[in-house]
Amino acid sequence: MSARRNPGGDSHGVVVIGLGRFGTYLAVTLTRLGHEVLAIDRDLQTVQRWSSRLDRVVQADATDETALRQLGVADFKRVVVCIGAAVEASILTVLALIEVGESAIWARATSRKHARILSAIGAQHVVFPEAETGERVAHLIVSNMLDFIGFGDDFAIAKVRVPPPLVGRTLAEVAPAARYGVMVVGAKLPGRPYEYAVAETVLPEGSLLIVEGGIDQVQRFAGLT
Amino acid sequence: MSARRNPGGDSHGVVVIGLGRFGTYLAVTLTRLGHEVLAIDRDLQTVQRWSSRLDRVVQADATDETALRQLGVADFKRVVVCIGAAVEASILTVLALIEVGESAIWARATSRKHARILSAIGAQHVVFPEAETGERVAHLIVSNMLDFIGFGDDFAIAKVRVPPPLVGRTLAEVAPAARYGVMVVGAKLPGRPYEYAVAETVLPEGSLLIVEGGIDQVQRFAGLT
Repeated sequence: MSARRNPGGDSHGVVVIGLGRFGTYLAVTLTRLGHEVLAIDRDLQTVQRWSSRLDRVVQADATDETALRQLGVADFKRVVVCIGAAVEASILTVLALIEVGESAIWARATSRKHARILSAIGAQHVVFPEAETGERVAHLIVSNMLDFIGFGDDFAIAKVRVPPPLVGRTLAEVAPAARYGVMVVGAKLPGRPYEYAVAETVLPEGSLLIVEGGIDQVQRFAGLT
Repeated sequence: MSARRNPGGDSHGVVVIGLGRFGTYLAVTLTRLGHEVLAIDRDLQTVQRWSSRLDRVVQADATDETALRQLGVADFKRVVVCIGAAVEASILTVLALIEVGESAIWARATSRKHARILSAIGAQHVVFPEAETGERVAHLIVSNMLDFIGFGDDFAIAKVRVPPPLVGRTLAEVAPAARYGVMVVGAKLPGRPYEYAVAETVLPEGSLLIVEGGIDQVQRFAGLT
């Protein structure tokens, strides 16, 4: 073990179980955001590799309730099970966490079935990186959008380059809501950070816009020539 | 081979190479969006498994230029290399695609180094599902936000539940820009789809809001009690 046994109660702390690609990015980002992270992996080599980049990395079998208790996992408010391909270990770990009294459990799924099981046994939040990114990238590939996020079935927010016919005009002139059925809610003008878009915002060549609306309208707006 | 050899020129078609989790979600979503997909995997069993759900699934070694030429890959405008863990195969495939004249190449990376190599050899777009989702989930876990997307280093759009102090009031009364430094750009009222938020929008309990602004402001708004 390369970490103290009982990290003590810290409501801002997060336990990250499974240091694969997803788990390590999560743990590193949480650390960067200033949160206490207790990382657990069953593989000693993995633990050793990450011990220099993360504060507390422990080698343990997270499907074992006794190990979870000894590590003081129940003192942490939130736990994320990042075990991916090992579906059985992922499920047993969620069950063990519920057994030790953990209530805020996030879990990573690697298939729709895996996601359904995790929800059914009590994981509050299920994330599915490949499916989420796969769907998002599908929309980007077939459109002129630079980034895309769906809300509900047909509302979307996208990052797009200012379409050529709109260059040099103000948003008030362009009237995107009336003319294209979309709202331009943010803009990044060349050399400046992102900010809210207002009626007076002029759109120089090379501007990036954040646009919201129905998926079809947003796609049509992004493709204006 | 379970597909026709030469799918012919279709500027809307997309070649998806590598039918792991990411590749299959991508290919299935593209098919659902109405686009012609040519899927390629080197493993015959994988090809057989997906042949009923995808129009054209072909068993081939995508690092082999001759195979790519025979399949008519150059006739497709866009190619996505979804090979993940096999870094060498991923790189050789991108090089083979460039050799056969493909210019719009998307590629999946599984580490920062892998991403740098893919960009350096000519992939136009590099995606990294675990890193993207890992960072996004880190923000969600430590906040009251339901979903979160960063634009640039400090501008963000988040999905949040309407904070308790704001329930029942109109957006004009709440004045989120003046009071909290954020803009409420969309809302999903109970039983209705997402729509633009306007000054007259009343926010019943259970509403979901789409909020934009600086990351700190958005987090503070989401956590209002």
